[in-house]
Amino acid sequence: MVSWEDISARLKEISLLEKTLALLSWDQETYMPPSGARVRSEEISLVVRLWHERICDPVWDEILNSFVSRDDLSTDQKRILEIFKRDRDKEVKIPVDLATALATAVSEAFQAWHEAKKASDFSLFLPALDKVFQLSLVKAAALGYERQRAYDAFLDLHEEGLTEEVFDPIAHETLGIMQRVREAIQEKGTPPAKDFLRQVYPREKQKSLCEWLLPCLGFDTQRGRLDTSPHPFSTTLARDDVRLTTRYDEHDPFVALYGVLHEAGHGLYEQGFLSEWEHTPLAQAVSLGIHESQSRFWENQIGRSLEFLEWIWPTMQHIFSPLLDGWTPQKIFHAVNEVKPSLIRTEADEVTYGLHILVRYEIEKKLFHGEIGLGDAPEVWNSLYHQYLGITPPDEARGILQDIHWSHGSFGYFPTYLLGNLYAAQWYATMQKTLDISSLVKKGEFGPLLQWMRENIHYHGRRYEAEVLVKRISGEPLRPRFFAQYLKGRYEAVYGISLSLS
Amino acid sequence: MVSWEDISARLKEISLLEKTLALLSWDQETYMPPSGARVRSEEISLVVRLWHERICDPVWDEILNSFVSRDDLSTDQKRILEIFKRDRDKEVKIPVDLATALATAVSEAFQAWHEAKKASDFSLFLPALDKVFQLSLVKAAALGYERQRAYDAFLDLHEEGLTEEVFDPIAHETLGIMQRVREAIQEKGTPPAKDFLRQVYPREKQKSLCEWLLPCLGFDTQRGRLDTSPHPFSTTLARDDVRLTTRYDEHDPFVALYGVLHEAGHGLYEQGFLSEWEHTPLAQAVSLGIHESQSRFWENQIGRSLEFLEWIWPTMQHIFSPLLDGWTPQKIFHAVNEVKPSLIRTEADEVTYGLHILVRYEIEKKLFHGEIGLGDAPEVWNSLYHQYLGITPPDEARGILQDIHWSHGSFGYFPTYLLGNLYAAQWYATMQKTLDISSLVKKGEFGPLLQWMRENIHYHGRRYEAEVLVKRISGEPLRPRFFAQYLKGRYEAVYGISLSLS
Repeated sequence: MVSWEDISARLKEISLLEKTLALLSWDQETYMPPSGARVRSEEISLVVRLWHERICDPVWDEILNSFVSRDDLSTDQKRILEIFKRDRDKEVKIPVDLATALATAVSEAFQAWHEAKKASDFSLFLPALDKVFQLSLVKAAALGYERQRAYDAFLDLHEEGLTEEVFDPIAHETLGIMQRVREAIQEKGTPPAKDFLRQVYPREKQKSLCEWLLPCLGFDTQRGRLDTSPHPFSTTLARDDVRLTTRYDEHDPFVALYGVLHEAGHGLYEQGFLSEWEHTPLAQAVSLGIHESQSRFWENQIGRSLEFLEWIWPTMQHIFSPLLDGWTPQKIFHAVNEVKPSLIRTEADEVTYGLHILVRYEIEKKLFHGEIGLGDAPEVWNSLYHQYLGITPPDEARGILQDIHWSHGSFGYFPTYLLGNLYAAQWYATMQKTLDISSLVKKGEFGPLLQWMRENIHYHGRRYEAEVLVKRISGEPLRPRFFAQYLKGRYEAVYGISLSLS
Repeated sequence: MVSWEDISARLKEISLLEKTLALLSWDQETYMPPSGARVRSEEISLVVRLWHERICDPVWDEILNSFVSRDDLSTDQKRILEIFKRDRDKEVKIPVDLATALATAVSEAFQAWHEAKKASDFSLFLPALDKVFQLSLVKAAALGYERQRAYDAFLDLHEEGLTEEVFDPIAHETLGIMQRVREAIQEKGTPPAKDFLRQVYPREKQKSLCEWLLPCLGFDTQRGRLDTSPHPFSTTLARDDVRLTTRYDEHDPFVALYGVLHEAGHGLYEQGFLSEWEHTPLAQAVSLGIHESQSRFWENQIGRSLEFLEWIWPTMQHIFSPLLDGWTPQKIFHAVNEVKPSLIRTEADEVTYGLHILVRYEIEKKLFHGEIGLGDAPEVWNSLYHQYLGITPPDEARGILQDIHWSHGSFGYFPTYLLGNLYAAQWYATMQKTLDISSLVKKGEFGPLLQWMRENIHYHGRRYEAEVLVKRISGEPLRPRFFAQYLKGRYEAVYGISLSLS
């Protein structure tokens, strides 16, 4: 029988390889000079292979087939093995040949996507994307799924337990909510003044604002840092080494500010796991959706609140003086919460963001159901944008070619973003019952909010699945009505209009 | 028989692990937040173990015992295996137990050194250092040496082929040269004016000067970059990804400038290997001494020349305007070439630098010969400083505790620094025969100098041992008289005195 000591040493080795991979990627996105890319991708392949070998090591079969009945393991230890078994099964099920073929196809598709986007011509992407898609169908078959729902295999890969059956009603309800808010605002709302964007906010000053903000939120800068990258992200090199990035727009200090709030939300989660479970699934995030709920909560529920702006205002005025003279938190509150249908998902406000997601979800479903072919996707894309957002992309670059995900074969990923928004709203409503969030935020006292997240979410790692966690915390399953409730409160205040969402 | 394809795939995997280690260390020195250290050292241990396993793989025994007589391998391929065999033998000879014991002892000694240095008390370092030293004697025995010269094993570890017998006459001759120059300057030289140090040179401006300088030297910034660290260094993440660091002193822009010139010298070497031999010893530096010759050449022979200062002067004046008004290249030439015995090796000028080295060399020899014990070392240190440099350290922090090397068990390392100075002078004299260095440097035309280095040194990687290389290039073995000749030229110009060194 393999001892726990041996088991946890094996888990640790796997984890250390994952963290090494995280560094290789972090550096690639932040500091690596352009010509470093070739060898870097070879290093990444090598470390992935070493990681894969350890995951697939047959010794695990013995461990994972017998642990349930062992008396010498604690409940936590058994939970760790249960989760690891599930993760490992997914890894083991993919034949090496398939993984290699997919890696090659993805690498070609990424190039093709890049060129197609530049030329704004989906047909240049189509053949390479088709190869990725066909291989993805094979991958779904390898992973297994029920009732001919191949897409479920991909949904589950990004959000454990998610299926079309689970997500469809959520999508339907959320679609209605978002459309009603969007329409009401488009009809009755007054667009905000945004002339503060006509000035130049020096990058160094923006950076110092962000650096100042992080510890205020509770982000431990001894255990993490902030850098710059074209696409903001966060990554975990260790529980005690969490890296965030943001980007700076010289004309809009809120791009970096909300970038940092978003990434700090991810980072606070990663810093909040218990050190005793480091290198095990009990020190990992529940799911992408739950991870996104952390970033959205700090970015939107907190960061875009009037109270937050009132709190941060004196500091911003001081740092950027005299650029913000004549502006008030109330005016900025309107500006940073503007709702307006737009073409690009990553630039969308939180009301229309989910509509971008549902366009993608519907297309992915149709593709996996065989209802449409990839060649039809641009047309469906445009028609759904018209239907959901009331706009039509003027070209494919700003339409179906905008996202990198499909070139990576990351089908089924998009829904997790929307789940993040929904979970965040549900946390907010629940937290509200025991904490006076508004007055805490107004004073910049974020400690109790973070502690709530720590105790309810972070400390548990993957002890509970998302479905169980949300019930434990809020007493009920994920419900879009919390999102509706949050949007109503927020946007009635922003636009001074009344929203009926019941 | 193992195919060349298989052999080179194995070499590549070893190389990729080395490069991954280089990234783990680079990040540790530059960006890693303090609390990242614990997991980082575990990652490094893991990757070192994976690397070691691949080096020691028994398949190599078969390959390395039979390659000499194989018809299917080219001369270059055989040379690669010959060098790899030599490197591997050293690695294989160290029993795992010994390596582990040394790693533990070194880690303890590093802590002890740190504390002893802070308290300026060598006795706090002594027990831990003694453990490292005793284990180092065992290591020397494992590596093997002739005529009871255990120190030779360590010299060879850092500079292949170096022995006391080889280095003693060089040390003796160089000691005489350096002492005569030092004494003459102390007697007859006028100290330079240095009031330009009383101003503040903004870090950002210094950085922009350094960033501007690198491509002028021929350093390819698409294949490398410059960062900041407390102790400047350079490291190679790939032939096409060479990282340099420097440090900034707000009062002295020449600290960063010469730091960058030094590290760029290392970096130019690493960027100069042939891509066809990437991941093999033919794309590696000959030795630490030859590596150091590259950094010293660019820092001293070139960077501290009057011509270089004349060339860079307008740019420096422009960047720091008006701080350098009233100064001239001639005055700066004097200031940056000041010769003055000082306590700290890393801050020493190029004349007295070697004296610091020889103090350490003499002590290491005596320790390995058993002539003195570690407890006697501080006294010997102080007396040699008095003898060579005419000064006595006021405390142990600025005396025997200043270097990190012994805590690492890096005995036999110091001589390579001095060899670097000697080689650099010999390259300079040889290059002079075909290139008008002065007028090229005056015009900022560094291309031909770099090309000379490329063709004579860089492109060959480890094809020739240092001893062979120096004869190929200059027609004779390493001769300290080139160093004497260089010092005479430089310091007669700097101080306007006459130096007799024959």
